[in-house]
Amino acid sequence: MLKGMFAPLATPFKEDGALDLEKLRSNIERLNATGLTGYLALGSNSEAVHVTPDEASQIFAAVRQAAAPGKIVIAGTGQFSTVATIEITRRAADVGCDAALIVTPFYYKNSMTGEALKQHYFAIADQAPIPVMIYNVPANSGFNMASSIVAEIAQHPNVVGIKDSAGDINQIAETVRLTRSKGGKRPERSAAESKDAVSTDTMLRSASSAGNFAVFSGNYGAMLPALSFGVAGGILAVCNIAPHECVQIYELFQQGRIAEAGELHLRILPVARAVTAQFGVPGLKAAMDLLGYQGGYPRSPLLPLDQNQNAELKKILREAELL
Amino acid sequence: MLKGMFAPLATPFKEDGALDLEKLRSNIERLNATGLTGYLALGSNSEAVHVTPDEASQIFAAVRQAAAPGKIVIAGTGQFSTVATIEITRRAADVGCDAALIVTPFYYKNSMTGEALKQHYFAIADQAPIPVMIYNVPANSGFNMASSIVAEIAQHPNVVGIKDSAGDINQIAETVRLTRSKGGKRPERSAAESKDAVSTDTMLRSASSAGNFAVFSGNYGAMLPALSFGVAGGILAVCNIAPHECVQIYELFQQGRIAEAGELHLRILPVARAVTAQFGVPGLKAAMDLLGYQGGYPRSPLLPLDQNQNAELKKILREAELL
Amino acid sequence: MLKGMFAPLATPFKEDGALDLEKLRSNIERLNATGLTGYLALGSNSEAVHVTPDEASQIFAAVRQAAAPGKIVIAGTGQFSTVATIEITRRAADVGCDAALIVTPFYYKNSMTGEALKQHYFAIADQAPIPVMIYNVPANSGFNMASSIVAEIAQHPNVVGIKDSAGDINQIAETVRLTRSKGGKRPERSAAESKDAVSTDTMLRSASSAGNFAVFSGNYGAMLPALSFGVAGGILAVCNIAPHECVQIYELFQQGRIAEAGELHLRILPVARAVTAQFGVPGLKAAMDLLGYQGGYPRSPLLPLDQNQNAELKKILREAELL
Amino acid sequence: MLKGMFAPLATPFKEDGALDLEKLRSNIERLNATGLTGYLALGSNSEAVHVTPDEASQIFAAVRQAAAPGKIVIAGTGQFSTVATIEITRRAADVGCDAALIVTPFYYKNSMTGEALKQHYFAIADQAPIPVMIYNVPANSGFNMASSIVAEIAQHPNVVGIKDSAGDINQIAETVRLTRSKGGKRPERSAAESKDAVSTDTMLRSASSAGNFAVFSGNYGAMLPALSFGVAGGILAVCNIAPHECVQIYELFQQGRIAEAGELHLRILPVARAVTAQFGVPGLKAAMDLLGYQGGYPRSPLLPLDQNQNAELKKILREAELL
Repeated sequence: MLKGMFAPLATPFKEDGALDLEKLRSNIERLNATGLTGYLALGSNSEAVHVTPDEASQIFAAVRQAAAPGKIVIAGTGQFSTVATIEITRRAADVGCDAALIVTPFYYKNSMTGEALKQHYFAIADQAPIPVMIYNVPANSGFNMASSIVAEIAQHPNVVGIKDSAGDINQIAETVRLTRSKGGKRPERSAAESKDAVSTDTMLRSASSAGNFAVFSGNYGAMLPALSFGVAGGILAVCNIAPHECVQIYELFQQGRIAEAGELHLRILPVARAVTAQFGVPGLKAAMDLLGYQGGYPRSPLLPLDQNQNAELKKILREAELL
Repeated sequence: MLKGMFAPLATPFKEDGALDLEKLRSNIERLNATGLTGYLALGSNSEAVHVTPDEASQIFAAVRQAAAPGKIVIAGTGQFSTVATIEITRRAADVGCDAALIVTPFYYKNSMTGEALKQHYFAIADQAPIPVMIYNVPANSGFNMASSIVAEIAQHPNVVGIKDSAGDINQIAETVRLTRSKGGKRPERSAAESKDAVSTDTMLRSASSAGNFAVFSGNYGAMLPALSFGVAGGILAVCNIAPHECVQIYELFQQGRIAEAGELHLRILPVARAVTAQFGVPGLKAAMDLLGYQGGYPRSPLLPLDQNQNAELKKILREAELL
Repeated sequence: MLKGMFAPLATPFKEDGALDLEKLRSNIERLNATGLTGYLALGSNSEAVHVTPDEASQIFAAVRQAAAPGKIVIAGTGQFSTVATIEITRRAADVGCDAALIVTPFYYKNSMTGEALKQHYFAIADQAPIPVMIYNVPANSGFNMASSIVAEIAQHPNVVGIKDSAGDINQIAETVRLTRSKGGKRPERSAAESKDAVSTDTMLRSASSAGNFAVFSGNYGAMLPALSFGVAGGILAVCNIAPHECVQIYELFQQGRIAEAGELHLRILPVARAVTAQFGVPGLKAAMDLLGYQGGYPRSPLLPLDQNQNAELKKILREAELL
Repeated sequence: MLKGMFAPLATPFKEDGALDLEKLRSNIERLNATGLTGYLALGSNSEAVHVTPDEASQIFAAVRQAAAPGKIVIAGTGQFSTVATIEITRRAADVGCDAALIVTPFYYKNSMTGEALKQHYFAIADQAPIPVMIYNVPANSGFNMASSIVAEIAQHPNVVGIKDSAGDINQIAETVRLTRSKGGKRPERSAAESKDAVSTDTMLRSASSAGNFAVFSGNYGAMLPALSFGVAGGILAVCNIAPHECVQIYELFQQGRIAEAGELHLRILPVARAVTAQFGVPGLKAAMDLLGYQGGYPRSPLLPLDQNQNAELKKILREAELL
């Protein structure tokens, strides 16, 4: 069963906007030494929307190569059209990524009915050579996928989990409730399709066959609280800069040391907010630079933090005892 | 320190719209036998906005009288104007209510700055003969009070807690974080004012003097999760119909039996939604009638559930093993 | 047919919070000399939620007495419960108000289905001795009534119009489209009810019998634009301080001098915003004081403008050539 | 000065998902005979997000070639990153498009400050060989650009207008108010940059040099109403299926025949809604097929209308006397 803490890796760029794979590899090497379960390459925090298809392939390959053996690599491969998503998912599989995270198609919000979403995800899951996860991220997409639709899509044997970044504790509980007995009536898959779908990782394969569906929080603030009703873990921006603390919260909870977990949760809370809602990707990159990682530049239209923002960020990191 | 589970009591009406205090007392007598810490008289679930000032006084008195010794009675006394709120808070104190819950003034949303809210709550807290709690309920009020403003108001020695029904797990954590070391710079109170402020309950008095600030979830789905970072408990519609289960979730958590608490949380989740977001107060009253309590009629413009809604509600109660 | 421009009168209070009827009368006397069709007593701009039932009766009577003959007086009488609304509507009728404006009941937003709203408005319209208008004001109420529901309620013979303050140009057009042929299947009224419903004003009576339904914009920015598809006029905060300009926009449009109307519309736009969304009721009162009307104090929790806000307001009034 | 009515062309696909340029050309030929000022290639209604960069180039060329001489062709070229936007804008210019419409970058909503947006649009406008227009479309992007930011960007000499699809009548008026005297302090452009910026169309060139900024409504319901305060026209989905009626509304208004324009506005209103908010792009394509145009298939994840939706759409078209 897929579980634990993942870092959705930032993608460092040079000042002229060029991709900086050296910095990316350097970050991964440092994170390899932590208790993180793995990495997400090209999620929202990675500026996935700012890279070209060729750069995406390079990044998938670089992350897979730099990741220590045993670390799971999830590739963010969702595009607006179904066909483009399948194409880039194949590229990610080709270079050895373990699973594909598919953001909800969000441009035609009003047209994204349960039926449209189901056909989209089923077509992708049918043709993807690796297991598929749903990515729900309303803060960026402006679209929120209802738990009931998630549960329907979770019926597909090659759909193994969700990163739910909505941060809505009622919704993520409902998703857990509706998917925890994943199984029941499953769509038949053709022999040809089944051949394609070879999961490359034992954990993922067992998830797929056992009918388990892993619900991850992509929102820091919801992660510890949601452990109380069985979420699998977190895929959190703050894991890039406070991996030890994030893993510790998760482990303290597993050990029943809830009060300590809660104390740590509150200490890191302002940092998690600073590198997401408050200062966004530029804030995450600046924090990485301040804490010995290699954030690099964001790509335009994102602007690097200005001096005042940097000072505020430092203050937050210091108060959380990270700096 | 104020803590535990409270029922925000429904207010039963007769078919002709008249107040039915008999049914109200009957419900309280039955709830007295549970582990609930106390009751909220005239919150949102009580149709507070549908009763006259005279009826409000009757209800406060009836709840106080029917409540078993040791059960804390919180009175919902918030009105749109500061002066009207103070007036009705005095009435609640006169009949022995232990604390007053003051909903955010919400008609002039754009004008409700931190300063306006602070002056409103401080004026009330200065003049209220009983401790004051903040009530944040965006689903009804259309207004959400930021954690930073809550924290500022919490500085007042006669403000002892909040019922936060927003259900936003990040916000309630931030409120806990900012108020847990309640104290620091507090406004001085005049001797005259201090004389008025005699808390009638030991728990509340100690809260007030020790500088503790109790954060309650008014949203079921956020309650158990938020226990992980130290909320004080819940004031939940579903406590009217599943008091044992609500108390049990709280106690299982305190005993470190989180997995069991989580299992129960997911089982009750659809019921909690049915008597709030899904079917509202009429749903709560119908569920009370189905489960041996006395819901009675809602007041117009609220309509009783129709047959289809009632059937759906029954199904939900059965699946949760309450019926 | 009810039409033209109305001022939703501010309610002046003294510094100690007492009602200041002298100032209210003084404002009306000055406004009597303008081309306004009439007044709204106790709308949102009047702090209706901040006055007691007794004060409401005084205000209805005072406005009726001070209003010049021929000026229509609409009374804002909506309360949360149906029964309380009927009671205060009768009071307004008793002192000679011409129509009652009933805000959508908005506390139990999720329960306000079309059926609930229809039963509420029909019960009121059946029992009100004067014609009834709907009041849709999402900025304050947090609730928006759909055009299709308005159209259904408009079928009642004693419902003669709407003040739609949503400012949504698509919605108000849809409301006009669906109600312009008001009539069709109307509910029968009992003889007893009919006796009660004597409209006091010829314009209103003819509206009622002819099946016309008057759609007013309660949002300045939507008023002129919506004249292009047939709205009846406006009930606008800014009419309190720029009655001549508001009437002029309306009349220029009727004369086909659209370019001049548009020019004036843009000139007044920042003022209309200043006394509503930007500075709210305290802004309206401050502007009245600056322009020779008698704004007086708002009631707590509303705060008077501070010095910076006052300076900004003055600047806006000067740029619009009102000061 | 850029003005009048534009059709944002649908992009027909074959059942297997392939681009169908024949159908696209056929539609343009038919629309060439109407009073439309021109076309938008690859806006939201064109499924711009569903085509590859190569297909985009083909579409820009095909539209330019099929468009009658004198018809203005605007190319939708906005991408998430600044650099990708510049690249595709050059392609559009190379094949003879007259202007580029640049959607607000909307993935990192929280980071899109006025400064970030200004730098993005200024960099594009500096390097674009053709004039640039802003595209604000919250229903799809989940992001709304404030009028004050639009006005700042409008200062750039190569930014000549906006398609504002927000449908907020107050906002579009504020944009007109703030930009109608476009001019004032303009950023200097380097000689090198100036050489690049050769506008290909007299109307656009004069706009650019005269400092005029054309505000178009991208929302049908706001178009006629906004003509009252000076918007330049509309770029509306419904222009694809009711071009005569759209042009007629515009011309009736110019002739001062407002009542007739308003009548037509209300008649077409349900159709405009059907092919946007109600049934989306699949609805637009189905309506084209019903009315003798060539809608073709949408690309997945968009689904063609089902039978019930088609029947409802037909009913709407018949009631509007288009079918």
